[in-house]
Amino acid sequence: MVVGFEKAVSATKSVVTSAKKAPTTLSSDRVINFARGDPTMYESYWRQMGEKCTVVISGHNLMSYFSNAGHFCWFLMPELDRAIRRLHCVVGNAVVDDDRYIVVGNGSTQLFQAVLYALSSSYDPDTEPLSVVAAAPFYSSYPEETEFLRSGLYKWAGDAYSFDKDGAYIEVVTSPNNPDGAIREAVVNRDGGKLIHDLAYYWPQYTPITGKADNDIMLFTFSKATGHAGSRIGWAIVKDIEVATKMVKFMELSSIGVSKESQLRAAKILEMISDDCQNSAPDKEENFFEYGLRLMSDRWEKLREVVKRNGVFSLPKYPQDYCNFIGKYTDPSPAFAWLKSKDGLNCDNLLRELKIVTRGGTNFGVDSNYTRISMLSPDEEFNLLLERLSAIQGTIINGNN
Amino acid sequence: MVVGFEKAVSATKSVVTSAKKAPTTLSSDRVINFARGDPTMYESYWRQMGEKCTVVISGHNLMSYFSNAGHFCWFLMPELDRAIRRLHCVVGNAVVDDDRYIVVGNGSTQLFQAVLYALSSSYDPDTEPLSVVAAAPFYSSYPEETEFLRSGLYKWAGDAYSFDKDGAYIEVVTSPNNPDGAIREAVVNRDGGKLIHDLAYYWPQYTPITGKADNDIMLFTFSKATGHAGSRIGWAIVKDIEVATKMVKFMELSSIGVSKESQLRAAKILEMISDDCQNSAPDKEENFFEYGLRLMSDRWEKLREVVKRNGVFSLPKYPQDYCNFIGKYTDPSPAFAWLKSKDGLNCDNLLRELKIVTRGGTNFGVDSNYTRISMLSPDEEFNLLLERLSAIQGTIINGNN
Repeated sequence: MVVGFEKAVSATKSVVTSAKKAPTTLSSDRVINFARGDPTMYESYWRQMGEKCTVVISGHNLMSYFSNAGHFCWFLMPELDRAIRRLHCVVGNAVVDDDRYIVVGNGSTQLFQAVLYALSSSYDPDTEPLSVVAAAPFYSSYPEETEFLRSGLYKWAGDAYSFDKDGAYIEVVTSPNNPDGAIREAVVNRDGGKLIHDLAYYWPQYTPITGKADNDIMLFTFSKATGHAGSRIGWAIVKDIEVATKMVKFMELSSIGVSKESQLRAAKILEMISDDCQNSAPDKEENFFEYGLRLMSDRWEKLREVVKRNGVFSLPKYPQDYCNFIGKYTDPSPAFAWLKSKDGLNCDNLLRELKIVTRGGTNFGVDSNYTRISMLSPDEEFNLLLERLSAIQGTIINGNN
Repeated sequence: MVVGFEKAVSATKSVVTSAKKAPTTLSSDRVINFARGDPTMYESYWRQMGEKCTVVISGHNLMSYFSNAGHFCWFLMPELDRAIRRLHCVVGNAVVDDDRYIVVGNGSTQLFQAVLYALSSSYDPDTEPLSVVAAAPFYSSYPEETEFLRSGLYKWAGDAYSFDKDGAYIEVVTSPNNPDGAIREAVVNRDGGKLIHDLAYYWPQYTPITGKADNDIMLFTFSKATGHAGSRIGWAIVKDIEVATKMVKFMELSSIGVSKESQLRAAKILEMISDDCQNSAPDKEENFFEYGLRLMSDRWEKLREVVKRNGVFSLPKYPQDYCNFIGKYTDPSPAFAWLKSKDGLNCDNLLRELKIVTRGGTNFGVDSNYTRISMLSPDEEFNLLLERLSAIQGTIINGNN
């Protein structure tokens, strides 16, 4: 049984506690969890890479608090700064010119909160907290991350589509969007707005790279870029040095920086990916993003086929686009499938009958006839998902009628 | 020049911007920084250990968010949990029975905030924020860490000695205390109080281990225990599972856990120390704590001698006590020297004239005739400190009269 994280993210869900016995057509009775986006799918790729990006750390290495004492982000290791900039140049998904500032964080989760602090801490303490909005469906953790400390600096103000207050606000633009994979732009577009672009999924395995993102504040995460969620490394690319400096201040007060072991390893892995991407030898192997795209495309094709066949759900359709990195037209293959039940049924509950745990639509600010399924599980679990979804028509007849 | 962290911690200080030229008796003109407690002193020990605690991490290792999915603290690696409990048993400085819960954090800084959240989040949202106090002189970061997000859950309420509000409150008890090395107990002692024991310095190199600490919530940090500040690993030992579970919730919302690379390495290093401490071979080498105590005692002896000779400052006196771990009476040798100027002069400014940067008393809630000096700097810098302090009598005559 998984507790904690999974429990936390599903706290607001209605859980089927007395799940009916799964039909005998299913190959296993065990509950499979697609509620979280644990990117363990990529493990097989990294296993194939053998010792190419192994790090060796002796007892006396990396001891000081400081990584770069003269730098505004004194805990950022210069090799990670370089590796991040190089990878964005190679992939072409973000502008990383010299006048852009990189801030490293304990995952983009911590950086999101660092940005809220940076954008709100100079406001008059007597005014009310700055409103934070995102267009629904929005990432399920934004509201709780914004609200849990009941900050007087900022507060969650819900769906950007229905936000109608005057004055300053922060809008989070997640593109491709979590949960629904849509390519997004800001929706409020009023004076006094500050934007945070969460670009965790703007990588070639998830979506065609159509240009270099050039927003004021862009968040990326190692977890979704390469699958190394356990390292807790995220980074922000920031235009305004004042905002970047306040984010660093937040990081100091929150955790006095970021694990150097993780930074060292992230630097090595990102450099290896860049090396492979720039390898032009005729016999070169598939690079990480080509591998990821092949796997994700294959999974999406299989999922669409199953969903089409059982007729109970629908999936979003995404336009094909030219990917500058891959060098041809590619189909988006998001990290999550945003499933909708055609009959308006509670999608999450329906799947729990099949012992498939997902994250229901209400967590994302929309109705319960939607649910989110992670596409990043290990092969065995993904295949079990397909198998159970294939059998769902029978289950609905047997179990719900 | 060091910016960021150093700048942050000295933000409230008055800085001597036009420092007079240091007297020619000093061996170097460069500014030496003792304001922060960067424990780089221990690097030489770990270098001597060679490959005994080297970690090797392949590209496919440690990828999942989860470390122990069935455990209340799902991101804590079981090997780190074991290593922490074993080391406390070996040193005898804290009770770690099976009914105590370990929560890992990105340094004890993040855990301190996790405890504030855990102790305050169940309070009625309509009541005013929970008061957080500590007896002055208190660790200079507590006020800012408590205040920076203007939480509606808790607020900094200053010196515990002058706290006179009724009702619930949190008192932080730091023992040995940062900055002054004193062994402490709670001072408010009223109904409705919750205690956080910050035991970062309760290790044999800093103070005699007189018994196993057995408080409700105890914080420790890898930075001060072994000198590995760059790893950002701290841990809490908690009696109440509800408090521990809320701390885990904070960690989820704040950073979705803690770097696994750092946890793996911390586990290896703590196990190595325990192995060495338990080695009873006749030709065994000095263990880490014996080494640390020898170095710290030597530094304190030299510092006391210089301070006595120049007659400008005084240092606290600490009673000798029997250290259960070392097996004899030892003198406390705190990680910081808490210097007081005899003439009531601004101690921090006085030392800046000598290009010695320290952290002045006002940061710790007391007068500016106190200042804090880190005792954990590299040898070269510590020797320079002694040299400059030796010359101070002349400087005061030359520079201040």
